[in-house]
Amino acid sequence: MIRVGVNGYGTIGKRVADAVDAQPDMELVGVAKTQPNFEAHTAVQRGYSMYAAIPERMPLFAEAGIDAEGAVDEMVADADVVVDCTPSGIGADNKALYESHDTPAVFQGGEDADIGDVSFVARANYDDALGADYVRAVSCNTTGLSRIVAPLEEEYGVEKVRATLVRRGGDPGQNSRGPINDILPDPIDIPSHHGPDVRTIFPDLKIDTLGLKVPATLMHVHSLNVTLEDDVTAAHVRQLLEAESRVFVISEGMGIDGAGKLKDFAHDAGRPRGDLWENCVWGESIAVEGRDLYLFQAIHQESDVIPENVDAIRAMTESASKAESVATTDEYLGVGITGDPSGFGGEDRSDRVPGTELADD
Amino acid sequence: MIRVGVNGYGTIGKRVADAVDAQPDMELVGVAKTQPNFEAHTAVQRGYSMYAAIPERMPLFAEAGIDAEGAVDEMVADADVVVDCTPSGIGADNKALYESHDTPAVFQGGEDADIGDVSFVARANYDDALGADYVRAVSCNTTGLSRIVAPLEEEYGVEKVRATLVRRGGDPGQNSRGPINDILPDPIDIPSHHGPDVRTIFPDLKIDTLGLKVPATLMHVHSLNVTLEDDVTAAHVRQLLEAESRVFVISEGMGIDGAGKLKDFAHDAGRPRGDLWENCVWGESIAVEGRDLYLFQAIHQESDVIPENVDAIRAMTESASKAESVATTDEYLGVGITGDPSGFGGEDRSDRVPGTELADD
Repeated sequence: MIRVGVNGYGTIGKRVADAVDAQPDMELVGVAKTQPNFEAHTAVQRGYSMYAAIPERMPLFAEAGIDAEGAVDEMVADADVVVDCTPSGIGADNKALYESHDTPAVFQGGEDADIGDVSFVARANYDDALGADYVRAVSCNTTGLSRIVAPLEEEYGVEKVRATLVRRGGDPGQNSRGPINDILPDPIDIPSHHGPDVRTIFPDLKIDTLGLKVPATLMHVHSLNVTLEDDVTAAHVRQLLEAESRVFVISEGMGIDGAGKLKDFAHDAGRPRGDLWENCVWGESIAVEGRDLYLFQAIHQESDVIPENVDAIRAMTESASKAESVATTDEYLGVGITGDPSGFGGEDRSDRVPGTELADD
Repeated sequence: MIRVGVNGYGTIGKRVADAVDAQPDMELVGVAKTQPNFEAHTAVQRGYSMYAAIPERMPLFAEAGIDAEGAVDEMVADADVVVDCTPSGIGADNKALYESHDTPAVFQGGEDADIGDVSFVARANYDDALGADYVRAVSCNTTGLSRIVAPLEEEYGVEKVRATLVRRGGDPGQNSRGPINDILPDPIDIPSHHGPDVRTIFPDLKIDTLGLKVPATLMHVHSLNVTLEDDVTAAHVRQLLEAESRVFVISEGMGIDGAGKLKDFAHDAGRPRGDLWENCVWGESIAVEGRDLYLFQAIHQESDVIPENVDAIRAMTESASKAESVATTDEYLGVGITGDPSGFGGEDRSDRVPGTELADD
């Protein structure tokens, strides 16, 4: 069993903890939090050991009725791997702590690329992370772009990628963010940082990205153009993407016209938190003009990186091959939508929320 | 004097009426409306003659305290040119009325392209409309794209255009439209109709367009890629666009990061209704990678077609050359932003709202 600690229990951390907890070859040592807010209470309810990310705040947890096991460094010492899910920039501050305990760590995409030995998307470069001490699971948008580029590059060759990322202004809980009733080029200067970030995964890729922010919270939507090296048909590309376990090709008859209905679909299917770990590509949007491929995809910013974090742990510990790890993560998390409206992942998961099992122990 | 009637007095019609009324070589015969709502009252206040678009509703206007001059066919008979500003599809129904009076007409971009002898953007194809009986002023987005394509095509040659149109869900007054908190590919299938519509102006242009709708009402934003035939620099492109009277290149120091501030700027400068007749291109967004040009522009869907409607009238009546018409329209409407924060169009227009002069008569 790989013993995993999760430092930071917010939007990403709580999902990583649940995903780790659901894996057959991993054990969740515990989670570390800065404050005993609602998420801390849920963690306790799920049976997760709680550690104080700021040791001086231990009494705060006690006051809130939460018995913290100890301070974060105890969790780090006890873990084979730590997944750092703290806010952007804090991960860099935490690296010294992990180094002092010789504990390998996964960082998130908000950190600079040089925080890790390798930036990581399982589909694209799993093997680069084999045995690595520090790995950066790239951001939601970079993950989403890389999952499309990888099969296209392998199958047809990619001449150039041009992508406009229509980004949600903030997550549903980030109620002090904007915009309201505006469409903001963000950043105004072109290209955005996303293209260079994808090049941490595909160093030789030609890619230009443009970013905007709009008054929506549910998912990002990418308007994607890929100039391919081969002549292809839209039908062939669709078939290729449908074969990817972490790409959900939305079929026309499902009546899914946006992120709202995608989330409804995920909630109806009993997915934890209505998460959509897969790129959600509109099948009817897949179009080819000459060697120019176009498509729209929606990216769930809160959850698409979760399977990647789990795979990174196996690569770093060299405990599974790429194929084995991806298959295990997908099976135990429930990744993979067949397009069959009867459910996700080929089985009814409506009674199963990762992590809840422990709470009954 | 060219005698002009305006049929339909909603978002576009009321602006066209004001713009016509402000021209030195045009006389507004009157405006026709289906119902005596708030806009009808404003028209009367401005001194515009009111005609009932549906003759049977004449009594409704009287009940509302508005003396209608007569029915719409009287206005059509009395006009040298009618500008049809009725909702999409109604223009086609009205064409027989204009034909029966031998009155040339300008239609809007919501009509099918074949309603007119020519689809029209002054910058691109003014001369094609010389003497034409029926002209279609294309939609706001097509106008905005054409104004950028024309100078690029002339100066460098255009190999291909790829544009993602992040569209406002509805105008500020269209409060039953969505989306709320979503990002909708619209249409989901690619390409959208905008590319073919631009080809009504540039028949040989290679252009692929993708459309989305977001929860915003103020302006559209285009994420534009143009592969040029020549190698260029961003600085050269910027200079080229700054020389265009109907393109406002937003300079970095102005602190304009979206449509909200653009509208504030226009309102502060005293522009009627806060209208932005120009394409608003973010100067710092203009970027070149190889022969790929990128930029962001905001398009004010309620007003960017107004100068084009005015120019179409002059072309149809062969009363001015392209250069003369554009210069006159720009001067009397107030088009043209120098980038100088002290004002628009080189003079203080804060005390001038087109159309209000007549109201004092």
